Amino acid sequence: MKIAKTITELKTYLEAIGGDKTIGFVPTMGYLHDGHLSLIKAAHAHNDVTVLSIFVNPTQFAPGEDLDAYPRDFLRDSRLAEAAGTDLLFFPDPAEIYPAGASTFVEVEGEITKKLCGQSRPTHFKGVTTVVTILFNLINPNIAYFGQKDAQQVAVIKKMVRDLHLPVQIAVCPIVREADGLAMSSRNVLLHPEERKQALVLSQSLAAAKALYQAGERSVKILTAVIVNHINSMPLTHIDYVEILDFETLANIETITSPTLAAVAVRFEKTRLLDNIILD
Amino acid sequence: MKIAKTITELKTYLEAIGGDKTIGFVPTMGYLHDGHLSLIKAAHAHNDVTVLSIFVNPTQFAPGEDLDAYPRDFLRDSRLAEAAGTDLLFFPDPAEIYPAGASTFVEVEGEITKKLCGQSRPTHFKGVTTVVTILFNLINPNIAYFGQKDAQQVAVIKKMVRDLHLPVQIAVCPIVREADGLAMSSRNVLLHPEERKQALVLSQSLAAAKALYQAGERSVKILTAVIVNHINSMPLTHIDYVEILDFETLANIETITSPTLAAVAVRFEKTRLLDNIILD
Repeated sequence: MKIAKTITELKTYLEAIGGDKTIGFVPTMGYLHDGHLSLIKAAHAHNDVTVLSIFVNPTQFAPGEDLDAYPRDFLRDSRLAEAAGTDLLFFPDPAEIYPAGASTFVEVEGEITKKLCGQSRPTHFKGVTTVVTILFNLINPNIAYFGQKDAQQVAVIKKMVRDLHLPVQIAVCPIVREADGLAMSSRNVLLHPEERKQALVLSQSLAAAKALYQAGERSVKILTAVIVNHINSMPLTHIDYVEILDFETLANIETITSPTLAAVAVRFEKTRLLDNIILD
Repeated sequence: MKIAKTITELKTYLEAIGGDKTIGFVPTMGYLHDGHLSLIKAAHAHNDVTVLSIFVNPTQFAPGEDLDAYPRDFLRDSRLAEAAGTDLLFFPDPAEIYPAGASTFVEVEGEITKKLCGQSRPTHFKGVTTVVTILFNLINPNIAYFGQKDAQQVAVIKKMVRDLHLPVQIAVCPIVREADGLAMSSRNVLLHPEERKQALVLSQSLAAAKALYQAGERSVKILTAVIVNHINSMPLTHIDYVEILDFETLANIETITSPTLAAVAVRFEKTRLLDNIILD
């Protein structure tokens, strides 16, 4: 596995690979878990070359968010990345990605970035779409891999790719969970032991809603209430949102008639966790 | 010369060309004049394949601006384009470029898009940078050609390419002028005969400033006043701006010490004209 810390190194390695090879790309913020590794393995299985980026992107964190606390462990990440099939690891400094005075942003406007995480993090997706565009421009992948864990990010990036005609295919891999059901996240290590126990309520509440849906319930109001009640039964949780929306457009619905996303965001003392499930 | 009206046709032609050829790209809004043709000729001279786009981009016009009045003549354009060396002419409908519900924009934020034309057209450059990004994504050119006539557009696009690491080189060609000195513009045909006469004051005022600069004058205040006085001597003119700025960053300056842009925008009854000159 090659490691590029600068754009010059990245371009040197990419040129050595040659333009006829297919490139699978996995953009991450590092602190890799089995969810990330499933993306790397999928890229490795379907492309000639697998490029992984590890970049804790400052523009997707607002002042006061957990940019500095975001967990980092490059040595562990690089071993895991290589074992999962990474050929080229891009690990740039912020100054490589954002040259001095950079002020150009890519933004998906409208409801799709305003609801769910966009309510409490209004500038988050602007940072995500900007850095993903930059990484696509630098790496020129054939396929880029994202995890369904960040369901809104997936919807936003798919819309960006469509709207801007970006020459890349987006592949989405299922959520990978701990043995007890907690969705894998780099932020899970920030939970206190009692929070870690209570965090199980995210996946459990979604599973309860899915069971009810499979039993025939189609009312968004009722399914939402079931999830909310489950989560509120755990005293350390603070609901950021519980939403049931159209899977592709994230539009509000009242009754489920097509593939639907049930998504939750829950805050603990210092850590905010996401989970979601598809109802179809 | 091939003509593509759809993205499907464009991609078919580009695939037939093959990935090993260099592509020179000239994005225009059509109604071609010798300025555009100089860009096509430059692209033709330095690349294997020359792609021209003709697209009157709705997102760079605000409501009430001259989107509908913007002159169009596709048959004449296609003859001129072919004679100048165009290999592939892309002439899409707005619905090809902006799919239904498109809401993703590329924006260069900051002073560079707020001053000069950005004062009276605050959303203009957001439309320009969005459509140029889309066209770059569709055509993947090696070099894209722009005219120095739209000096601020050139500065904004260069900044966008740098900030987003777009894999394209920007080439800038000098202003092409009518025999009497008027900078060529598709909008010149919209001038009434008396306006056309008085419009000469744009290039004449800039030439006067340049002569004074060459005689040793370095004060932005004095050079600006000379241009303003010249333009105001013509009764049908209404100055939108007269600005003397750093050539690259468009930052304000007081004294000229490095390459500098003197730029003017002047309104006539229904037509707004631009001109500029480089002081170095």
